[in-house]
Amino acid sequence: MDIKAEILAVGTELLMGQISNTNAQYLSARLPDVGIGVYYHSVVGDNHERLREVLGLALSRSDLVIITGGLGPTKDDLTKETVAAMFKRRLILHQESLDSLMSFFKTLKRPMTENNFKQAHMPEGSRVIRNNNGTAPGCIIEEKGRTVIMLPGPPSEMKAMFEEAVIPYLEEKTESRIVSRFLRIFGIGESAMEDAIKDLIENQSNPTIAPYAREGEAIIRITAKYPKDEAFEDIITPVEQEIKKRLGVKVYSSDNRGLDEVVAGMLLQTGTTIAIAESCTGGLISARLTEVSGVSKIFNRGIISYSNKSKMENLKVKEETLERFGAVSREMALEMAKGIREVSKTDLGLSVTGIAGPDGGAPEKPVGLVYVALADKSDVECKELRLWGSRNRIRNVTALHAFDIIRRKLMT
Amino acid sequence: MDIKAEILAVGTELLMGQISNTNAQYLSARLPDVGIGVYYHSVVGDNHERLREVLGLALSRSDLVIITGGLGPTKDDLTKETVAAMFKRRLILHQESLDSLMSFFKTLKRPMTENNFKQAHMPEGSRVIRNNNGTAPGCIIEEKGRTVIMLPGPPSEMKAMFEEAVIPYLEEKTESRIVSRFLRIFGIGESAMEDAIKDLIENQSNPTIAPYAREGEAIIRITAKYPKDEAFEDIITPVEQEIKKRLGVKVYSSDNRGLDEVVAGMLLQTGTTIAIAESCTGGLISARLTEVSGVSKIFNRGIISYSNKSKMENLKVKEETLERFGAVSREMALEMAKGIREVSKTDLGLSVTGIAGPDGGAPEKPVGLVYVALADKSDVECKELRLWGSRNRIRNVTALHAFDIIRRKLMT
Repeated sequence: MDIKAEILAVGTELLMGQISNTNAQYLSARLPDVGIGVYYHSVVGDNHERLREVLGLALSRSDLVIITGGLGPTKDDLTKETVAAMFKRRLILHQESLDSLMSFFKTLKRPMTENNFKQAHMPEGSRVIRNNNGTAPGCIIEEKGRTVIMLPGPPSEMKAMFEEAVIPYLEEKTESRIVSRFLRIFGIGESAMEDAIKDLIENQSNPTIAPYAREGEAIIRITAKYPKDEAFEDIITPVEQEIKKRLGVKVYSSDNRGLDEVVAGMLLQTGTTIAIAESCTGGLISARLTEVSGVSKIFNRGIISYSNKSKMENLKVKEETLERFGAVSREMALEMAKGIREVSKTDLGLSVTGIAGPDGGAPEKPVGLVYVALADKSDVECKELRLWGSRNRIRNVTALHAFDIIRRKLMT
Repeated sequence: MDIKAEILAVGTELLMGQISNTNAQYLSARLPDVGIGVYYHSVVGDNHERLREVLGLALSRSDLVIITGGLGPTKDDLTKETVAAMFKRRLILHQESLDSLMSFFKTLKRPMTENNFKQAHMPEGSRVIRNNNGTAPGCIIEEKGRTVIMLPGPPSEMKAMFEEAVIPYLEEKTESRIVSRFLRIFGIGESAMEDAIKDLIENQSNPTIAPYAREGEAIIRITAKYPKDEAFEDIITPVEQEIKKRLGVKVYSSDNRGLDEVVAGMLLQTGTTIAIAESCTGGLISARLTEVSGVSKIFNRGIISYSNKSKMENLKVKEETLERFGAVSREMALEMAKGIREVSKTDLGLSVTGIAGPDGGAPEKPVGLVYVALADKSDVECKELRLWGSRNRIRNVTALHAFDIIRRKLMT
């Protein structure tokens, strides 16, 4: 039987726009791995009546309801209370939770406040989920063919508990699996991409194919449903191959890794060392690259040469070039790339210079004009970009172009 | 009369966890500015039946339903179709939208595909909202005392249309305003903070006071409701002052700006120049600082000294110090801060060195050990941090500590 799931987030801070519901995103991405499809997300505030109402609706249309948030120690936190009341169960002291709460506070050398005791009370007959990263335990309640799982709101606690306890619990319950493969694509617009694979989309059944756009790039999702303990490769691979044949090198990843991760992987795998000189991106490209653990093996240094002095001192750029062509120019990008490579003695030198805006543009050098250059031992190439949008968008899309120029170099 | 609003996002990519519902967050943060409270978020896939059902529910419990997504050119996009059918209205060609679509494609020098024509068809009797950043127009439908507003899914398009057309439309309709002030706090845990303001929370009515935690920092939201055209300062200010009195310099912002923005503002305002040497944060601190437009006036350079060679060449760190104390040590952080300041000739030099993990830790130097140092003309100080969590968390929290050390320096 297919399990229909719904994610219910509780928290006024979500309805005030203070935080984004990233828990729903995480759970939605993970549940299909155990064959469970997510059909609805709901968000409701820290309000007993509305939570009751939304939970009632969720139980009427979904088999599994995962509730995040509202398990904290304060009076505003009323998830357990509401669920217990709905199922006519009492909240009773769970000794194991109390013990681990007390040892948690002992480790932190912080006093346990009275309201933390509330967190050790769990609905009668529920299966308690231990929280190794915080104070609020979670729990699972089964009643009348429906399952309600309560997890705390802080993402790091929620994720750990979901992986450690909920996934194993759900794996037992389900017969099928849903797997998605994400082809990530750089260098083609959404419409052009859809045109290229239109016939495949029109004839889809299993797997399904869905194209969409993300900032500066495009994604194609291929989703297959199959019985657990069987292989899904035969369902997905032929479609994946056909799409790759049509889009060629523009497809940069088929495991949903971003361009930054893909490039970090290629640099590590080939042992290619790199140094990066950034101007308008202000460290963003280096920060992305160094999100990947282990890159110290190939990343020598990054220079964020905001001042002209830094360009000359750290990148050996000539004052004449600065004066003649300006800091944002093809000539400057080429010199920066060669310069950073030479001073760092790396295989590759990448440079970026441009105008991220919103100020600093001029008719001949408008906001969004960016040069990305890459030097290796024998050559240096430069790409001129004309980007649009906010400062943030221009910086982010520039980073994508920078990673793509490295990727293409490493492919040759 | 109070308007109750609900945000309904349409898109299977949300239910697959491919993207986070940042539109709901944005709209939820903005609607209170025109006196509208958000009571529910819902997300549903690109499915006619379920969209109908969720929309029906939304119309039964909310006065205003803002739908994001499903206005694109493809067959999956069925928001307009579903709403029109529910209200028994036809979709008719909107000539102005067709004209601007055609000129949009002309500017992009891209051919207009047949399915783009679908986007120029709007529900009869609706007020059309022009899209200056993309192809899908939005619209507003009023029926039986309910209002439905449809906006496209891509955040940049949605936001611009909301600001340009929806906010002015809603301002006309509402009598009250809700304003929130966000006190952002660094250097205190959530429980300790709640303890410090417990009595204020217990006695709250208007304004309301809500504390919560975010990665590495804490926030207190003070929310007041007041009639439009009147002042809210008298409601909020006394509470704000009292909290600031109790928490002191730990309160770093009362306008919801992050530590990075606050520090960029202080540096710009005081004309204090800075250079940054980063190791484990890999450019993150510089990237955050340079998100703020205009910082080129005070940010001289950033050095991401991943290799020891870079530390010696770019920061004038002594080989002896490296050998004796190691790259992650108090001595190294102090030398890096002094070094970056000297080579850059700036007022301040900031340095960070540490172990972000997950690999690279050792018993005497575990993952999460980080040193942050700050040098000025007369002094250099260093803070040792013991952080926990993922590589990303350690890098992010380190950045907060780095900004806070600058902030405290600039306050003296």
